[in-house]
Amino acid sequence: MATKFVYVFANGSADGNGKMKDLLGGKGAGLAEMTGAGLPVPPGFTITTEACNAYYSGGGQFPAGMWNQVLDALKKVEKATGKEFGGSTNPLLVSVRSGAKFSMPGMMDTVLNLGLNEETLQGLATLTGNERFALDAYRRFIQMFAKIVLGVDGELFEEALEKAKRSVRAKLDTDLKAEHLANIVRDYKKIVKSETGKEFPNDPYQQLEEAIKAVFRSWNGDRAQAYRRREKIPDDLGTGVNIVTMVFGNMGEDSGTGVAFTRNPATGENKLFGDYLFNAQGEDVVAGIRTPKHIDELKGDMPAVYNQFLEVAKKLERHYKDMQDLEFTVERGKLWMLQTRNGKRTGPAAVRIAVEMVKEGIIDEKTALMRIPAGDLDQLLHKMIDPKAKLAVLTTGINASPGAAYGKVVFTPQDAEALKEKGEKAVLVRRETSPEDVRGMDAAQAILTSTGGPTSHAAVVARGWGKPCVVGAGEVVINYAKGEFAVGGKRVKKGDWITVDGTTGRVILGQAPLIDPDLGADFKKLMEWADKARGEFKVRTNADTPQDAAVARKFGAQGIGLCRTEHMFFAGDRVDSVRQMILGSQDYKKLEKELNAVDAEVKKGVTPTKKKELLEALKKLKKAIDEPKRLYLGGLKALLQLQRRDFEGIFKAMDGLPVTIRTLDPPLHEFLPHTEAETAKLARKLKVNAKSLWDKVQALHEANPMLGHRGCRLGVVFPEITEMQARAIFEAAANVQKRGVKVAPEVMIPLVGDVNELKLQAEVVRRVAAEVMERTKQKFDYLVGTMIELPRAALTADRIAGVAEFFSFGTNDLTQTTFGISRDDSGKFLPAYVEGRILKDDPFQVLDQEGVGQLVEMGVKKGRSTRPTLKVGICGEHGGEPSSVQFCYKIGMNYVSCSPYRVPIARLAAAQAALGSDQTISHTA
Amino acid sequence: MATKFVYVFANGSADGNGKMKDLLGGKGAGLAEMTGAGLPVPPGFTITTEACNAYYSGGGQFPAGMWNQVLDALKKVEKATGKEFGGSTNPLLVSVRSGAKFSMPGMMDTVLNLGLNEETLQGLATLTGNERFALDAYRRFIQMFAKIVLGVDGELFEEALEKAKRSVRAKLDTDLKAEHLANIVRDYKKIVKSETGKEFPNDPYQQLEEAIKAVFRSWNGDRAQAYRRREKIPDDLGTGVNIVTMVFGNMGEDSGTGVAFTRNPATGENKLFGDYLFNAQGEDVVAGIRTPKHIDELKGDMPAVYNQFLEVAKKLERHYKDMQDLEFTVERGKLWMLQTRNGKRTGPAAVRIAVEMVKEGIIDEKTALMRIPAGDLDQLLHKMIDPKAKLAVLTTGINASPGAAYGKVVFTPQDAEALKEKGEKAVLVRRETSPEDVRGMDAAQAILTSTGGPTSHAAVVARGWGKPCVVGAGEVVINYAKGEFAVGGKRVKKGDWITVDGTTGRVILGQAPLIDPDLGADFKKLMEWADKARGEFKVRTNADTPQDAAVARKFGAQGIGLCRTEHMFFAGDRVDSVRQMILGSQDYKKLEKELNAVDAEVKKGVTPTKKKELLEALKKLKKAIDEPKRLYLGGLKALLQLQRRDFEGIFKAMDGLPVTIRTLDPPLHEFLPHTEAETAKLARKLKVNAKSLWDKVQALHEANPMLGHRGCRLGVVFPEITEMQARAIFEAAANVQKRGVKVAPEVMIPLVGDVNELKLQAEVVRRVAAEVMERTKQKFDYLVGTMIELPRAALTADRIAGVAEFFSFGTNDLTQTTFGISRDDSGKFLPAYVEGRILKDDPFQVLDQEGVGQLVEMGVKKGRSTRPTLKVGICGEHGGEPSSVQFCYKIGMNYVSCSPYRVPIARLAAAQAALGSDQTISHTA
Repeated sequence: MATKFVYVFANGSADGNGKMKDLLGGKGAGLAEMTGAGLPVPPGFTITTEACNAYYSGGGQFPAGMWNQVLDALKKVEKATGKEFGGSTNPLLVSVRSGAKFSMPGMMDTVLNLGLNEETLQGLATLTGNERFALDAYRRFIQMFAKIVLGVDGELFEEALEKAKRSVRAKLDTDLKAEHLANIVRDYKKIVKSETGKEFPNDPYQQLEEAIKAVFRSWNGDRAQAYRRREKIPDDLGTGVNIVTMVFGNMGEDSGTGVAFTRNPATGENKLFGDYLFNAQGEDVVAGIRTPKHIDELKGDMPAVYNQFLEVAKKLERHYKDMQDLEFTVERGKLWMLQTRNGKRTGPAAVRIAVEMVKEGIIDEKTALMRIPAGDLDQLLHKMIDPKAKLAVLTTGINASPGAAYGKVVFTPQDAEALKEKGEKAVLVRRETSPEDVRGMDAAQAILTSTGGPTSHAAVVARGWGKPCVVGAGEVVINYAKGEFAVGGKRVKKGDWITVDGTTGRVILGQAPLIDPDLGADFKKLMEWADKARGEFKVRTNADTPQDAAVARKFGAQGIGLCRTEHMFFAGDRVDSVRQMILGSQDYKKLEKELNAVDAEVKKGVTPTKKKELLEALKKLKKAIDEPKRLYLGGLKALLQLQRRDFEGIFKAMDGLPVTIRTLDPPLHEFLPHTEAETAKLARKLKVNAKSLWDKVQALHEANPMLGHRGCRLGVVFPEITEMQARAIFEAAANVQKRGVKVAPEVMIPLVGDVNELKLQAEVVRRVAAEVMERTKQKFDYLVGTMIELPRAALTADRIAGVAEFFSFGTNDLTQTTFGISRDDSGKFLPAYVEGRILKDDPFQVLDQEGVGQLVEMGVKKGRSTRPTLKVGICGEHGGEPSSVQFCYKIGMNYVSCSPYRVPIARLAAAQAALGSDQTISHTA
Repeated sequence: MATKFVYVFANGSADGNGKMKDLLGGKGAGLAEMTGAGLPVPPGFTITTEACNAYYSGGGQFPAGMWNQVLDALKKVEKATGKEFGGSTNPLLVSVRSGAKFSMPGMMDTVLNLGLNEETLQGLATLTGNERFALDAYRRFIQMFAKIVLGVDGELFEEALEKAKRSVRAKLDTDLKAEHLANIVRDYKKIVKSETGKEFPNDPYQQLEEAIKAVFRSWNGDRAQAYRRREKIPDDLGTGVNIVTMVFGNMGEDSGTGVAFTRNPATGENKLFGDYLFNAQGEDVVAGIRTPKHIDELKGDMPAVYNQFLEVAKKLERHYKDMQDLEFTVERGKLWMLQTRNGKRTGPAAVRIAVEMVKEGIIDEKTALMRIPAGDLDQLLHKMIDPKAKLAVLTTGINASPGAAYGKVVFTPQDAEALKEKGEKAVLVRRETSPEDVRGMDAAQAILTSTGGPTSHAAVVARGWGKPCVVGAGEVVINYAKGEFAVGGKRVKKGDWITVDGTTGRVILGQAPLIDPDLGADFKKLMEWADKARGEFKVRTNADTPQDAAVARKFGAQGIGLCRTEHMFFAGDRVDSVRQMILGSQDYKKLEKELNAVDAEVKKGVTPTKKKELLEALKKLKKAIDEPKRLYLGGLKALLQLQRRDFEGIFKAMDGLPVTIRTLDPPLHEFLPHTEAETAKLARKLKVNAKSLWDKVQALHEANPMLGHRGCRLGVVFPEITEMQARAIFEAAANVQKRGVKVAPEVMIPLVGDVNELKLQAEVVRRVAAEVMERTKQKFDYLVGTMIELPRAALTADRIAGVAEFFSFGTNDLTQTTFGISRDDSGKFLPAYVEGRILKDDPFQVLDQEGVGQLVEMGVKKGRSTRPTLKVGICGEHGGEPSSVQFCYKIGMNYVSCSPYRVPIARLAAAQAALGSDQTISHTA
């Protein structure tokens, strides 16, 4: 049997259904489903995604049999509508639209009114009794077909249209009369002839064939590819093509077209949300060219249609058990549904909709948890403008995507990308956005447009990405050429700072003070469900200060998984104590060794002569060691007090929860002054020779600091540093415990490559713990464990677990060493790798399960083979990335630890893993 | 049953035997074996190594029962000798010596004449009828016991002796009369009293107990530990203690003592080799204080003894099937054997002895192969002085350890170490060396002593380490205080260059020209056997030039396993072509991308207006790209010609053998000028702006270049470079093939972390190969493979093998990334790690089988799981390290590749692996 490439839907009966998204695309499946459900859908048919793939594999040829199936389907549609394709009396006109499995807004091209030519035009005019309408449809068709299918620059048509309007002093398109439109059609055809060298195709079948091919081609257009890359949609899905009987929203004031969501996609409010335009065709709404009316107004304008639409919307939502994104057209008072699909939504909306749908009995808790892309929670945690702040509000537009952000004004996507590359923040300001702009939109902190509504391109894309966006800010007058925009008399130039508040729609001059958001009750409910689902699997946080710890606890952190002691080293002028410690350390250790050797010699029993000599040497050494000793031990002493105070604060903030503290990790020279002048200043302060201090600073330079003298290698060579840190931790623990705080310190030794390193460091820590407990008469439990962040640590985890009481996978460093890629230097090639699909993801963002993941899994298994009760977690940045969290759950870790703002994401991702998700839900299909 | 701690040997019967080295130590086992074989050995007994370990684990106490067993054994010895321990008429005197499983020359302490006190002294005097002899023995005993057991500074006794000699105008010790010696004994006892606060112990049993403890203690002395570390001898073996009836070589002119090897330990010649002293005790020979007579002279002096000794030597050699190191004493014309053990020997001697013993039917080929520590072959390959060179020979001493080397003169081991740390070469010049000097000897390139014979400390140690050494250069007069030595009127100061020729004994002023050695027939024979044994397992070489390739082939290399193309980049001024390529590359790629984008736009079909704009932009871009293009493509073109010529040379040198060529690997900035001035010079040459060139140089700086933009990441971003190199390789192959050379190029892509990188690079290489074959009409086979040098490559080797036709493990980089240690920066902690036994070996020298080895094994297995025929080798520096070679063999690699001079070592190590060795033979027991 020949492959079925074409699926018809007409008059309540459809070949396909809503489940066939892979084959028919989302739109085609929705049309089939709606038709099957008896909703008013114009008859039509869908060409399958298989046909698209076959078209590519066949070198740009339709697969055998497809075209005949199209012709058969056309016959059926003709029969269902009573119209004739290419017919001169009751001509069948169709729309040709793409429709892939995943919605790719604005990326795929659409042609309306296909089937029009000089003959059918007359038929349409006669049939509708409206020559002007027919001519307008024709000129739109020519323009669209020429642009999309023939590749003619659309601006040429716009210019011709404007010229025509000027010549007859028409303000709006609707001011144009039939005769004007007839001239425009002629002009358009001339443009096509001059640009393509060929006549505009008159044969409707040829039009159809070329349009289908154009849709197929658009699947592999640059913009579509870029979008798929951004959204991680596979390339081999292909697109379906939907050929649907045209219905006309531009047949007068009893006609119109609109798009609507069954609930508010920005907030989740259970209320129709959308807009429509009277007397307009579909693309006018989406393109944001005319500012449309709110869907609510339809109620007054056309009550019957509104009520019917409301009913259809409810029905579809219940049917699909999810919020729907609908397209409809009203033709002379009759409602036609053109599309339904699960609607894209912001993170906050996703939460509210899911929680409310559970309350409404539409879905259960599990479905609610599984439906929300964990990463989207990030949007709930977005900064907002401090309500107490005094703001220089420039204007207020439509609040299209929530959250607030500021950046320097740019007017082109290229400038946004350029600023981002420089590490600066940009706000992209455009009249409207189009698919060409997506990369620049991605690079910008926020987006502001002067036209368009809440379903305009800018709004849809920004919401999808959780980026603050204000659209339709009509007061904003942009002058691209001058590189500025004006609001009233106020001019804002390229490079000026503005703040965009997508939550309220405000546009503010300057950098508004941003604060953390207030999380709502729905969020809390969802998190409760999530916490119940994930059970014993914990979510901790990476926090270095009492402040961070408090924030994270508010977000639900169940402990600190990583406290980087050295992050406290830069506060105030304490870095000078660090510097003094470092600059004394090397000489101190060297001289101490010599001293001990001479001392041992003396004690061994030697001749009086020899003894005298040795004592002389000893005296000299003791003098030489004086300065380095003062620096080293003095610095350590100062740091002990500072660190103890820090740890007390952290223990208090985390009262009752475990706190994992990592001993000193980075290469020492990171703390040192960078210039000779700075060093001289430090030398004065420390009362040492500037020249020799500079020599010491330079001697600490490393060729590859990431692989140098850092991590436990510092503690092994300078055990006094580890001792100081252990003392600060345990004294802090004892101090706060006395005051009733429950402490659970976990000391973590970084960069262990061999069990012997850990052994030495653990000995120091345990000795100090015993001393502190003895002296303070305070008993407390503590653990000593290690980071697993080097391949060798994972490979020898069985031995390391003989000493370590817990493992925490440091996947940042583990990724660096496993790939042999320095994160700092990867900018020269890693973007090209991700862009060129050499790597699926940036491995520093998404845990590389294929490579690094093997080592992580091996480490867990080997560690537990020695110590079955081994506590295992992760504290790299992957600990807050949903797919990585799910991986950690799957391989049996006890917890993940991530930055405070990602704690809720990790909680949800963990719940999804517990509920059996195999991968992150990254697309709302 | 109580543990047996003491093993007696006496009068042809022994409790132990030669196989019990673990328990009795080498010396004890040898004494037992010799006694059992009926050789003349003074009766005695051995305390086991178990007792030593029990002594340590018991906190410095003899294990229960041991002392009673010692007393029982003493009784048996008394019975066998008819002497009485502590007896006043026929006193039994004993020597107490250490004896561990592995010989540790000079490291363990020895006490002779133990049992002497005021009473037994009289008995000895009466018995021997020689009061002077008895007193001399007594004063030696006091001196030795005080120094070794009581820890009194030996110099004090030397001073007292010198003083006494001066006071009676005695030139030699033998000039001292009995009365003088009696005074010296009194002085010695006073010294002991004043230094230790106690009387010298009179009770022979107390003497024995303390001496045994001193031997036990010496096992853990600093020097012994350092030696074990150097030689990788485990710490827990313990030492035996040998208590043996004293025989006296100092009982007049019919007495003497000596040490001898059954064959020459420096050359392997089958001829007794050693020296003896008349009227002397054993230590006099070894200490090098008096220059002894050659063993051959014994033939004339005491023909009967000589013949007996010769017979005993032959017997022992046949018995042990190996060259023996013998100690003997002649007491009043009677020969006593004091020790036999397998003798240490140089690499050349090891080869000659093994090969000749096979010829003599003493051992078989396999034994010969297994016996030679593969690493020792290094010594055969040592440089020698160019025989044609004109030399400023200062003097000639004894050729104690072969090979020639030069360095700056230093007079203390500390200075030798200090120079080595600075990366400079030192020659250690000493009157004599002692165990305190071993670290400095290790640090020096060569050793020169003014006293001592071929069995002196310096000679033994240097031979063991394969270090050039000349001893007994009597003309050399050293002035330590002035830091100079004089030969005749010629003064050589600290820091002056000298060359030491250990092969001939010459000492040469300045840096003599060194050349490669001529390998002898024995070596060839051994290599034949080795090659036969290792079968299909190949040894290749790392060679970057035709010269290296030719040398390696001479040493038996079966192909090139690693040709680092970039090593050719520094020859002459070709680095400027490299620089021009690099400095053009970044801009060229960027502009090329823009150009292509605009070009595509133009071709897409746009309005005339737009087209004009685009063409304008295109024109500008084409102008901008001009300079970078000239640099980049011009540099590549120049390099193509240079590289092609290089490869032609290499293919010719390796005619018929495979040649693995690695594409560009290091970070580009390694090739760039380092200073602004240098850059300005380059800018003038390249005719570009100096300022912007310097900017470009700086922009290429990387934070961690080892993990940066290098390896295949260069080829992925700049495919033109890979293309150029592939073209150079294949055009060279085609060119030489035309002239009858057989080529087998293997193109190796470095630093692959993901199969997709390799895919892209392999495509380039294969495309170029096809083009070159097509154009030149030359067909040749070639392979495309990859380095496995990142953990991720090993972890995903199954996928990589889908593209790679061979793997070569780059264990240098793999060690760096697996450990997370930069070799360049490891100096701050790795020595402390090895010293402190945190790591057993420096993992950059000896492959870390525990960690890195897991990845290597995994890589091989996974690779072969996809491609069973995958060819696998290693090309890190470990490829020439014996234990690593054996590991590679064991896990089923096809070849190892190492530097040319290590090829013979690898050949032998591979043979040993094939013959079933589990580990490197690093100690001749």
